Amino acid sequence: MTAGNNTLVITAGDPAGIGPDLCVTLGARGALDDAVVVGDERVLRARAEILGVEMRLEVEDIPFPAPVVPGTADSANARALIDGLDHAIDGCLSGRYAALVTAPVAKHVINDAGIPFTGHTEYLAERCGAPLPVMMLATDGLKVALVTTHLPLKDVPAAITPERLRAVIEVLHADLGARFGIATPRIIVCGLNPHAGENGLLGLEDREVIEPVLAELRGLGIDLVGPTPADTAFTPTAGPRDAVLAMYHDQGLPVIKYSGFSEAVNVTLGLPIVRTSVDHGTAFALAGSGRADGGSFAHALELARTMAARA
Amino acid sequence: MTAGNNTLVITAGDPAGIGPDLCVTLGARGALDDAVVVGDERVLRARAEILGVEMRLEVEDIPFPAPVVPGTADSANARALIDGLDHAIDGCLSGRYAALVTAPVAKHVINDAGIPFTGHTEYLAERCGAPLPVMMLATDGLKVALVTTHLPLKDVPAAITPERLRAVIEVLHADLGARFGIATPRIIVCGLNPHAGENGLLGLEDREVIEPVLAELRGLGIDLVGPTPADTAFTPTAGPRDAVLAMYHDQGLPVIKYSGFSEAVNVTLGLPIVRTSVDHGTAFALAGSGRADGGSFAHALELARTMAARA
Repeated sequence: MTAGNNTLVITAGDPAGIGPDLCVTLGARGALDDAVVVGDERVLRARAEILGVEMRLEVEDIPFPAPVVPGTADSANARALIDGLDHAIDGCLSGRYAALVTAPVAKHVINDAGIPFTGHTEYLAERCGAPLPVMMLATDGLKVALVTTHLPLKDVPAAITPERLRAVIEVLHADLGARFGIATPRIIVCGLNPHAGENGLLGLEDREVIEPVLAELRGLGIDLVGPTPADTAFTPTAGPRDAVLAMYHDQGLPVIKYSGFSEAVNVTLGLPIVRTSVDHGTAFALAGSGRADGGSFAHALELARTMAARA
Repeated sequence: MTAGNNTLVITAGDPAGIGPDLCVTLGARGALDDAVVVGDERVLRARAEILGVEMRLEVEDIPFPAPVVPGTADSANARALIDGLDHAIDGCLSGRYAALVTAPVAKHVINDAGIPFTGHTEYLAERCGAPLPVMMLATDGLKVALVTTHLPLKDVPAAITPERLRAVIEVLHADLGARFGIATPRIIVCGLNPHAGENGLLGLEDREVIEPVLAELRGLGIDLVGPTPADTAFTPTAGPRDAVLAMYHDQGLPVIKYSGFSEAVNVTLGLPIVRTSVDHGTAFALAGSGRADGGSFAHALELARTMAARA
């Protein structure tokens, strides 16, 4: 296969995790015939053998220097992992690939190698020169985007600035249109505090930071509901919506992962490239076991294809 | 009916909200024949008339001084509302009633009257002399308890102390046994930070505060899993559990309300009395409309009866 405008690029993720398992398993089913996998070809072949599946992948080989033992992470391989990611990103930016799908890495393994890394989302943004990546998880029935992502909880309130909130909503609104084909998306915006602050009784940010931004953006024609208490924002009583915007990680992700654990796809909005990902971690304990659930990965591929076709 | 050991007491909640609607509607169906409703009898009769249902309630009359207009909250009635709540609590403490079921009030309406009130849960604890109330929401398939409840988000991290966490787990463990008949409950405990801190990368509280408390309590024979990232704690991959313990309001409640919005019952653990409640607010806009969903209220009554029978 020649890489071209419809070709996906997949990063196989931490070689000791389930990323290689997902690649070889889906590859063997013919589900990756339109994709190139960036990873260590020997590791992928070995994993296919362990799992007893046919090796049917086109690989851009980035060999790992240290031996790979399924289940045992090794920071010595982190540099090569990041090199592979860079290669895939560059290929998307140059138009060689239509979209990027990433298998999971473990942040601490990369950090232990002295490489600052707080997550794929943040790394991609920096590498692409995108000012503001927006993380969104999507299932068939629900899309949840986040204003802040991988921050200690104590740092969240100060991070919800009017500037950030405004920019995130603008990205979300624009990409729901451009990438998902939703002409006039309705977005339900969660409050920061319980009960969206309950009239200031449980915190002032909802009233002083979030409400003014929503009012301003409504004035620009964006269809926004909120700030809505997070515990009702996802329920039918909050009314129809195309996406829910949560203020932080654990306000929004528990719901969507509960609602469709092996279906949810992680999408990065606000980038010049299309990028989707699984919604789970490396699951080191399952690497090579044959028990990794490929549902989210399959959905991530499907959504990347759909988004790429629209771009 | 004479109040006795099996009699429930129900507080009708804010008279301008849907509490009276729920009472008269369920009463008309004969579902409150074993209960006494504390509220303003004239208001309840008027609501039954508006909704066109038979008035079939035993009422302990606590008249409101100001006229009640469905949908229009009035702080002038807050004092009488609290008097009614006190009356109901005292009746439970004295053994006159077997359990308390509360319809919703709006905190800001009570606070506007100059009465400090951060929620039924906290109020009940103080009134009962209970050192530590624990808020839990329950549906048929899921129980979610909270370490902290109605706090601004910025105050949450400091409120998760080892002492508080230990005490909450002890109450939860004890009441899952005593009130729910679960002999050796397994509790999944969420981390405070995203990914439960991801080995300290996203916050230290998970490692420094939560882990040591869990280790200590496991040593006492309590079956605890965690700290578990909140976005997987509720999914099947986290394994079987009798309850999930979330660190704060919007980490746990969005999931359970999404999972069973009109079913979830709010239970207060750690009290000398049995108390359940609806899991929703006053819904002022729906008062008198006939569109209030009585599902949660019906479940709250059912659970109060079950818990009272076990006590």
